[in-house]
This record gives sequence, structure tokens and C-alpha cells, in this order.
Amino acid sequence: MPERLTDTEIDKALTELAGWTKAQDRSAITKSFKFKNFSQCWAFMSRIALLAEKMNHHPEWFNAYNSLDICLTTHDAGGVSPLDIEMATKIEKFKP
Amino acid sequence: MPERLTDTEIDKALTELAGWTKAQDRSAITKSFKFKNFSQCWAFMSRIALLAEKMNHHPEWFNAYNSLDICLTTHDAGGVSPLDIEMATKIEKFKP
Repeated sequence: MPERLTDTEIDKALTELAGWTKAQDRSAITKSFKFKNFSQCWAFMSRIALLAEKMNHHPEWFNAYNSLDICLTTHDAGGVSPLDIEMATKIEKFKP
Repeated sequence: MPERLTDTEIDKALTELAGWTKAQDRSAITKSFKFKNFSQCWAFMSRIALLAEKMNHHPEWFNAYNSLDICLTTHDAGGVSPLDIEMATKIEKFKP
């Protein structure tokens, strides 16, 4: 069972994750991405989908054409856990 | 340029699209889907992504694990157009 991170631990992790911020209304981390078009955005989402299945940890995300909002939280932990930090770190490496 | 449908035209089209409703806060049609798991949901989304590129018409959608909320509208028309009805009709055929 993943453990929920404290606010201090989340803040520390986010210093290494450019553009990621704490969600305002819940314990989650979030980032918005913009791409040239849907094709490029979908390619990025596809890599994240494979990662999600591999990690057995899935994002909440909203897509409209070339924009993508990702929100990461760990339901079993009741908030942000190391899994979310790991996923965000890996997502950053998928950027085109 | 696609033409915006009237409320009456949308209502008529929705009688053939089970589960699709008019969005409350804007001129759009929307439906929520549930799947067994993320894999099945993603397969469904992938078919829609290909359709979207082919139609050059893209959904706004939110996914969290096995749930998917789709919202269709046509920005160029300022609301629901025949493109959205066509897309919803095709999406229905992708259901597993």
C-alpha cells in the first residue's frame, strides 16, 4: 500500500518537476500540456497509457485537441504518494 | 463551414443516440461511458482518436481509469453541428 506524502514532501518533490503544482481542491498534483496538434498530443497520451498499465497506476486527464490536463493522485493512499511523483517524472521524459 | 443545429434538431437527433444528452452549460452533446478496466477504455478511446483525425473533428473528453466522459461540440459552428451527431453515431458503434 503506497503511503500518502506530507505537504512538505510533495513540495520538495515538485522542485524537480517543472510546471507541476498541487491541485487546489484535493491532494493531487497537476500539469497542463500544449502540443502542436491532436496527433502529437495523442502520441504523448499513448506513451502515458502504456506506462499507466505497466505501473498499474492511472492518471485522471482531460484532453481537447492539442491541450491536455493531467491530474495524479493515489486513491489507495488518499492523496499524493510516491507513485504519483514517479509517474510525473516519467511523463516528463515523454515530452516531444 | 458546419452549421449549428437548432435545439429542436438536436433533440430529434438525440432520440437515436441512447444515453447522449445536451450539456447543461453550453451547446454540446455529452455521454459518460464505463468499462471493465483502463485497457478496455483506452481501446475505445483509441478508435475514437483515429476517427477524430479522419474527420478532423475532435472530442473533449475526461478519462479516469475505466470511466470516460465525452463532450462533442463544433467550435466553428458555435455549438452542436451535424459533425457532432455523425461522430456520436460512429462512437456508439465502437462500444465493446
